[in-house]
Amino acid sequence: MSLEIRKAVESDAATILELINGLADYEELSGMVTATEEQIRKTLFSDQPYAHCFLAFWQGKPVAYALYFFNFSTFLAKPGLYLEDLFVQPDWRGKGIGKDLLLTLAREAKAKNCGRMEWMALDWNTRAHDFYRSLGADMLEEWKLFRATGESLDKLASL
Amino acid sequence: MSLEIRKAVESDAATILELINGLADYEELSGMVTATEEQIRKTLFSDQPYAHCFLAFWQGKPVAYALYFFNFSTFLAKPGLYLEDLFVQPDWRGKGIGKDLLLTLAREAKAKNCGRMEWMALDWNTRAHDFYRSLGADMLEEWKLFRATGESLDKLASL
Repeated sequence: MSLEIRKAVESDAATILELINGLADYEELSGMVTATEEQIRKTLFSDQPYAHCFLAFWQGKPVAYALYFFNFSTFLAKPGLYLEDLFVQPDWRGKGIGKDLLLTLAREAKAKNCGRMEWMALDWNTRAHDFYRSLGADMLEEWKLFRATGESLDKLASL
Repeated sequence: MSLEIRKAVESDAATILELINGLADYEELSGMVTATEEQIRKTLFSDQPYAHCFLAFWQGKPVAYALYFFNFSTFLAKPGLYLEDLFVQPDWRGKGIGKDLLLTLAREAKAKNCGRMEWMALDWNTRAHDFYRSLGADMLEEWKLFRATGESLDKLASL
């Protein structure tokens, strides 16, 4: 089989950064990326990493990644697995790589005794919505995301 | 001052569970709570806790809590602070306790070198939306939350 999926290790930091930049290019948000290889090493591969990553290789070439962390359900008092990024480089789409990564994460969630797995999709991406629903996931339409970042967060912290 | 806010410690596990149940009652979702004191101790107060909690006391009585964990921004390669629950018991509302908890978390986010702070609100709760916006937060309307839990997660993991 030409597809291999494995957990990322510290020496993959440059590859992860390349894929993050691939995602940013795709979303036309390249200007938003301030991540560096060193920051990735520090945040993903320390003793207490903030997040974890799976890489997918097609014929040996890294072409996709799934980055996740553990969130928490208070009602269950159990961790959940939150998928922050799932990205397949455009030239390698249509081979089921994204689905394989998603299923890998579902198995990881079960292995880590997680009560749930969550992720977000853009509202216009109805093809993705249909795909996720076909896999049995629910869309929680009643929740809205709020964010304070940069100057807004500074202001909030100084009130 | 009659309000005191402090980080929860292990001996607060019963208090935290009481407040989680208070939130579930308020949301009419009591049947969803399977959390136990022991689970709270294990998940919040181990060496590598999944989440953290601030408690607010009014004249010595615990009346509110904010439960949060660290998420991750790939573009920034930095952690973020995600506020999972912010709940004030109904009889103690209108005293600014929720706002004080929110500001405490913003300061915690800065202290922990977080690039952002995020949380969710129900779409019908426009009073909350206005309040969050008045504090400088943005509502990210374009994102939809997906979830697989229980049997859906089992199924996904077995595909």
